Amino acid sequence: MELVVAGGGVIGLTCAWRAAQAGWAVGLFDPDPESGSSWVAGGMLAPVTEAWPGEEELLELGLRSVALWPEFAAELGDPGLHTGGTVVAATGTGDRAELDSLADHLARLGRPVERLTGRELRRLEPALGPDVRGGLSVPADLSVDNRALLASLRTAAEKAGVRIEERAYRGEPADTLLICAGAHSAALHPALRGLVRPVKGEILRLAHRRGAFPMPGRTVRALVDGRPVYLVPRPNGLVVGATQSEQGFDTEPTVGGVRDLLRDAERIVPGIAEYGLVEVAAGLRPGSPDNLPLIGRLDDRTLVATGHSRNGILLAPLTAQLIVAVLDGGSVPAAVDPGRFG
Amino acid sequence: MELVVAGGGVIGLTCAWRAAQAGWAVGLFDPDPESGSSWVAGGMLAPVTEAWPGEEELLELGLRSVALWPEFAAELGDPGLHTGGTVVAATGTGDRAELDSLADHLARLGRPVERLTGRELRRLEPALGPDVRGGLSVPADLSVDNRALLASLRTAAEKAGVRIEERAYRGEPADTLLICAGAHSAALHPALRGLVRPVKGEILRLAHRRGAFPMPGRTVRALVDGRPVYLVPRPNGLVVGATQSEQGFDTEPTVGGVRDLLRDAERIVPGIAEYGLVEVAAGLRPGSPDNLPLIGRLDDRTLVATGHSRNGILLAPLTAQLIVAVLDGGSVPAAVDPGRFG
Repeated sequence: MELVVAGGGVIGLTCAWRAAQAGWAVGLFDPDPESGSSWVAGGMLAPVTEAWPGEEELLELGLRSVALWPEFAAELGDPGLHTGGTVVAATGTGDRAELDSLADHLARLGRPVERLTGRELRRLEPALGPDVRGGLSVPADLSVDNRALLASLRTAAEKAGVRIEERAYRGEPADTLLICAGAHSAALHPALRGLVRPVKGEILRLAHRRGAFPMPGRTVRALVDGRPVYLVPRPNGLVVGATQSEQGFDTEPTVGGVRDLLRDAERIVPGIAEYGLVEVAAGLRPGSPDNLPLIGRLDDRTLVATGHSRNGILLAPLTAQLIVAVLDGGSVPAAVDPGRFG
Repeated sequence: MELVVAGGGVIGLTCAWRAAQAGWAVGLFDPDPESGSSWVAGGMLAPVTEAWPGEEELLELGLRSVALWPEFAAELGDPGLHTGGTVVAATGTGDRAELDSLADHLARLGRPVERLTGRELRRLEPALGPDVRGGLSVPADLSVDNRALLASLRTAAEKAGVRIEERAYRGEPADTLLICAGAHSAALHPALRGLVRPVKGEILRLAHRRGAFPMPGRTVRALVDGRPVYLVPRPNGLVVGATQSEQGFDTEPTVGGVRDLLRDAERIVPGIAEYGLVEVAAGLRPGSPDNLPLIGRLDDRTLVATGHSRNGILLAPLTAQLIVAVLDGGSVPAAVDPGRFG
């Protein structure tokens, strides 16, 4: 049986790899594999700290997927899985109230997190600045080096027999087509029209420099005057993200977006002033109407796995599991079924 | 007669071109011509607004060179010479006092400039923000597109017979050697040791985006809480610079440097928030002990033209004129003689 996968980001590569392992002859098309939002991403595997009230189904999917991650990473030969955990920091009163309600919400769901004062947080993470007045510790939220992951996934997929064609998918015939084209997916099937849209996110990559304050050991998330910001550790630097705006297929970083990220990140971890700014980029998250992915069957010959918004890397192992089940004739949870919008 | 030029930035290319026109057989060595600080530069041709008290000799050199610029640019087929003039803006009281003393100083030198209120400046340049409280208009200070200039210079040099070798100069024999290696010059001759040092400058390139506030028509310079910042117009964007720090041969932009530039530039021209941030870079100005260039003879077979600090592009036509005079057996003004440090 032949499967054509359109899209070579983290979702397309993971699904192609797992389908090949399940016995499918897989061809993957992408003019530039390992790029797009997967390349720009921060790589947080953070179901808990992404779990805002009203998004319980996303939390459940995230928890199922993060549980798959350690074995998934081990199979890939460890693509930079970072298990140091996450702290969430707040500065002003409004931001602290917001984190309090997140903690309450998680407690009600039976996912208690540890509330800490600013001083306690700084004891855990001396890189946090004096403006941090309180927050949470969430040891279970992980991160992964998204670029190392992409390279590992491509190697694993090719080793499993996936044939990668570095060109755009243009209706090549196949028994089955799987659309994993991220924010560009809507153009590939009429049923996706209006359901997947690009959500721009700007991100920075910093390099630690000799003499600069040591890096935080954990992922640091924060709310600064209501704006979310995160700093994710990498072997010798930090990924700082991410803005969120809807401006069509626009991947040019703006002065205002970069200024916000620098200002907010520096307020939380002042020592980054001495770090190198080695990359400024923007990516397009594939947004969906309800912030949940679209995973499943569109018609007799077409499947889809997209619309993962901020959670594509987290949800990759679960998404591939669901796609392989659908290829086997199974079904998906109603929450992710692409037909749910009627 | 054979001349070897070590360095293919704006000074090396200009001197090589003029020497070839004067009848020399010129070979120019640079592993990466048209790069370095010439590539990163803002391209201001601004003798007046760079003329701080105590730097009268630099002002005089700058005025001599800026007078050569229109014909120089015309010979090169117009490499983006921008004749819209310059405004200098100040925000706080200290910055305004500093500009007042610059204006007094220029008046004493017989170079009067026009003092304007914030409102008058905004009438000239509606892009200036409400924090601008006063400043100067300096119509005679020009700018040039440094990258277009480099391309034009290379074309002109090659057309005049200059042979460009894209590799480092390694003591190739020649009748005469001319050292134009910018911040790297000190390594090429013992007499330059300790006289030329790298002065790092970070710079940003912005692109105007549809819907964003129109660009300023003039070069905008400003003092913001004592920090100088400039915004130089390009055909569809702005060059924003420049920080100044001494960290050896380090060309990695830092978070703190970029943050300062963004903050200060946005304070003066708030509309840039909606512009694209398309490039972040750092270059190494060739600093000299007295902020004046080193132009002239080092020994029987060696000439030098470097140490131009922030003024290399401005001083290029004059520098080449002086070098051709020295090649002809002439002398240079004492202020630029490389032997002046005795």
